[in-house]
Amino acid sequence: MTIDETPRGHASGGETPGMAKPRSGARDLERYAGLFARRTQVMKSSAMRDLMAVTARPEVISLAGGLPDTSTFPAEDFASLMTRVGVDDAARALQYGPTEGLNEVKDPIAQVMAAEGMEVEPEDLLVTTGGQQVIDLVCKTLIDPGDVIIAEAPTYPGAVPVFVSYQADVVQIEMDQDGMRIDVLEDNPYGMLRYEGEPLPTLFSLDGGEFVIYLGTFSKILSPGIRIGWTSAPRPVLDKLNLGKGAADLCSSPLSQLFVRQYFADRDWLAYVRELTGVYRRRRDIMLEALAEHFPREATWTRPQGGLFIWARMPDYIDTTDLLARALREHVAFVPGRAAYLDGRGGSEMRLNFSGVGDDDIREGIRRIGEVIREQVGLYETLTGKARPGHSRAAGDRGGQAAQAGARQRDPDAPDARVLPLHRRTG
Amino acid sequence: MTIDETPRGHASGGETPGMAKPRSGARDLERYAGLFARRTQVMKSSAMRDLMAVTARPEVISLAGGLPDTSTFPAEDFASLMTRVGVDDAARALQYGPTEGLNEVKDPIAQVMAAEGMEVEPEDLLVTTGGQQVIDLVCKTLIDPGDVIIAEAPTYPGAVPVFVSYQADVVQIEMDQDGMRIDVLEDNPYGMLRYEGEPLPTLFSLDGGEFVIYLGTFSKILSPGIRIGWTSAPRPVLDKLNLGKGAADLCSSPLSQLFVRQYFADRDWLAYVRELTGVYRRRRDIMLEALAEHFPREATWTRPQGGLFIWARMPDYIDTTDLLARALREHVAFVPGRAAYLDGRGGSEMRLNFSGVGDDDIREGIRRIGEVIREQVGLYETLTGKARPGHSRAAGDRGGQAAQAGARQRDPDAPDARVLPLHRRTG
Repeated sequence: MTIDETPRGHASGGETPGMAKPRSGARDLERYAGLFARRTQVMKSSAMRDLMAVTARPEVISLAGGLPDTSTFPAEDFASLMTRVGVDDAARALQYGPTEGLNEVKDPIAQVMAAEGMEVEPEDLLVTTGGQQVIDLVCKTLIDPGDVIIAEAPTYPGAVPVFVSYQADVVQIEMDQDGMRIDVLEDNPYGMLRYEGEPLPTLFSLDGGEFVIYLGTFSKILSPGIRIGWTSAPRPVLDKLNLGKGAADLCSSPLSQLFVRQYFADRDWLAYVRELTGVYRRRRDIMLEALAEHFPREATWTRPQGGLFIWARMPDYIDTTDLLARALREHVAFVPGRAAYLDGRGGSEMRLNFSGVGDDDIREGIRRIGEVIREQVGLYETLTGKARPGHSRAAGDRGGQAAQAGARQRDPDAPDARVLPLHRRTG
Repeated sequence: MTIDETPRGHASGGETPGMAKPRSGARDLERYAGLFARRTQVMKSSAMRDLMAVTARPEVISLAGGLPDTSTFPAEDFASLMTRVGVDDAARALQYGPTEGLNEVKDPIAQVMAAEGMEVEPEDLLVTTGGQQVIDLVCKTLIDPGDVIIAEAPTYPGAVPVFVSYQADVVQIEMDQDGMRIDVLEDNPYGMLRYEGEPLPTLFSLDGGEFVIYLGTFSKILSPGIRIGWTSAPRPVLDKLNLGKGAADLCSSPLSQLFVRQYFADRDWLAYVRELTGVYRRRRDIMLEALAEHFPREATWTRPQGGLFIWARMPDYIDTTDLLARALREHVAFVPGRAAYLDGRGGSEMRLNFSGVGDDDIREGIRRIGEVIREQVGLYETLTGKARPGHSRAAGDRGGQAAQAGARQRDPDAPDARVLPLHRRTG
């Protein structure tokens, strides 16, 4: 993808004439290109990262992030929990901890997993620096260059640079009602955020700990800023992951871990998840209404039963990467679908976040994107002379009805319909 | 190394009959061995990690860790700083941050680097999850399997599993007075902790940002528990490191970063470093005295001008890995020298930490280790009939005088004499 303006200083620094740097030679990529490892040569700036930079500007309504709404967490609660950690445990919070994590944080983790029907012992768990690190460690531990990873289509965009950096050969499979056979990583950040329908059993619980590596995180049910996730896996695999973790960053922040402990000890975490779920359900519904009002009838979208995103699909002649450049001029952002595929698919899709944006911004953001899409549709109709371009699936498929993330029909109201990026559960 | 007792549950879980686990099949390493990547197959549990587990037992005096003394940081200070972060910035502390780090933490970093004579702009910096992550990212970015890494002998034991996991061919060079030619990673956790002699210019400042990648960390001057380090490098390299960082864990904890900001805003960090330096200088001197009193004349050791460690060398016939097993029976631990070498050297050396242990425990720990060494020396003399075995360098080289980490003579009082594991500056 191309984004014209990249405010990230050290990415664009080489071309910014106003930046006086004593070390002029350092700017020349060619001088250093030969030094990089092969895995680095294939790594390139992800669409997500560039986007994060653009959307940091205050005038932009960003539907691009995957941000939970941390403003729902009371500041005074945070301060008083931290005070408790400080008074009781300052020296431990400030000290190194064991690579596998503090035992006190494994109890909260076990509680979260139990709430989703999984039973684990502390020895089954490795505490990580966010869920992202689990993806990295699993690839580091299991993937040789050229190995095949089977992922869902679309997948989690943040997994794409990991797969690329380990030089994996990624095959993305579209899902049907029965899903696909799975003995790989199960990424479940949103399991507790379910808006309707019955909770689904996790693959981990179905598997019985034989082959599934489970990834959990506090990012979406408590805070991503503390950077605490976890993994559970068969013990020989967990032991290798632990070795990789030690080499990667020694341990995850004891400060953050003790905050989790204190939070679970002093507060009702399930009540907070229920509150969050209520906020996000309302925002999902607001976005669905706005989509029905502002998006042209050629567009389709999902009605997610959980998670933080709606996936929308434009007519094939619309490239959402180009569309994003136009949308940014209107100060609104989304993630172009291509970021969730490694094979060039997803060119007409977009990912829209409803959790991290206020109600009014959701309406206004969708209105602006709808306007940009309508312009493109109009332009196409003028150029081709077609009043209704051939995108048959779109006909009569508007406004909160069935839509598709991966180019197939799904019934979103069926309890087992879910979009599983990677194997990311949305509900 | 061999340690009989490993309390880490998920490492030894497979052999612990008392642990009832529903997933019995998960214990069998052979079932999973074929699944691991080549880089994982060469990874093995490091001496350091096994040690950490053993030394966690309260009855053990551990001179093995690299722990700063976090109890010197007032608990009420920690609590009040965290309260400020909570009141002013709870939502941001709990939210995702940019991969490259919050700008507010780059100012404190620039202050620390300026105190060591280095000038950097925010764009030159990447905030990381501790200094360990920099080593991992640099290897990930620059090292293909079979590439040669030139490291000092001895090197930082925590770097060893990283080098191994990236399948590097490590050549360890002994240092002389002039050091060695360097255009690689400079690891400088201890630069600010200098007990005597003139501060040395950093390689980074001498190089001018052309080839040196600089690694800094708050672990030793503020807290390792917050897991905040940083790197500065030529921008094309920094950009690649940033990509690797995003894939590894998205971002370092904004909670921790805001704590650093608040600490630098509200407190006199240099005064705290001076206080720490005073505590550690006293403990170094206590350890030097204890070594002179309790270690046999066949042993030699360094008199470090900075850092957290004394390196001691036994007669060649003593294997410090075996010695550790005996020392643990006396409830005292150290790091056997072999952990800092990748080529089997260091078998008669040991690393002794004086920063994380109280004054009395330093004396008692050294007394116990000295006793175990004397036993071994006596055993050797009985077996060989020699009263004074042939270790010429040891003669007359006792008690706080010149000693050697890497099997050569050095003058420790010369201002440029330093032990640089990796290129780790100790003063």
